[in-house]
Amino acid sequence: MNFSDGPCPVARGLARVGDTWSMLILRDASLGLTRFDQFRKSLGIAPTILTRRLQDLTGEGLLEKRRYSEHPPRDDYVLTPAGRDFLPVLVMIGDWARRHYGGGELRRLVDAETGGDVVPVVIDQVTGTVVGTRPLRLVSDSEPAAVP
Amino acid sequence: MNFSDGPCPVARGLARVGDTWSMLILRDASLGLTRFDQFRKSLGIAPTILTRRLQDLTGEGLLEKRRYSEHPPRDDYVLTPAGRDFLPVLVMIGDWARRHYGGGELRRLVDAETGGDVVPVVIDQVTGTVVGTRPLRLVSDSEPAAVP
Repeated sequence: MNFSDGPCPVARGLARVGDTWSMLILRDASLGLTRFDQFRKSLGIAPTILTRRLQDLTGEGLLEKRRYSEHPPRDDYVLTPAGRDFLPVLVMIGDWARRHYGGGELRRLVDAETGGDVVPVVIDQVTGTVVGTRPLRLVSDSEPAAVP
Repeated sequence: MNFSDGPCPVARGLARVGDTWSMLILRDASLGLTRFDQFRKSLGIAPTILTRRLQDLTGEGLLEKRRYSEHPPRDDYVLTPAGRDFLPVLVMIGDWARRHYGGGELRRLVDAETGGDVVPVVIDQVTGTVVGTRPLRLVSDSEPAAVP
């Protein structure tokens, strides 16, 4: 499959991050992890697979390497702006899973300053309504925009 | 890997939908597709893989089968409440990809009634702020909630 240049933005996105490991690496990077061994321990992932996923994420512009040691050569992996911008997706996946697959010990997201639970919701900034509460339609970019 | 009962809600969610095909099937179901052949044509997916993914999504409670023909036996696949509730995640993935991997022909999401573009954003309903603009922290469920 090759959706990376197709007309559907969801498919274009998934062509870059559409597997569990890639998204969990972005999760860990969002939590501040930067080093190969940190990711490996956090995920329990095979080193060969981790190497490949870090290469892919770097190639797609979601992580960038920063050398922190010359002898031996060692790199940190830090989020690019596009990688940081994936955080809202991760937050919504976590929120969805908490609602539908909760139970037992489960971490939750809090505002670091207030300590209060974060209750994430996707709204449409134009109408101010919660996405999912009004009918939506996908249109081609070549179609005209708003009908007055 | 088995994250399905782990403490991280993101990992729990990805244990259910963490591959491109599963999420694209949920996308198509959100657009109203219900039948095997519709999914197959939309995705260009091998029938054996599609059968497996539909079974998995049904087993996880994201799709449910509704028989529409007895001879031969044929089922529709329709979203459950948990499957419909995944829509905001798909919307955010599409929005993220549109910003970072745009260019060329690309579909966009509009409000079906107003015809206006949807500009999705994740906010924290408690603070009213956009998620990503304030520092966040993951805590264990056993930790106390809000610090007054």
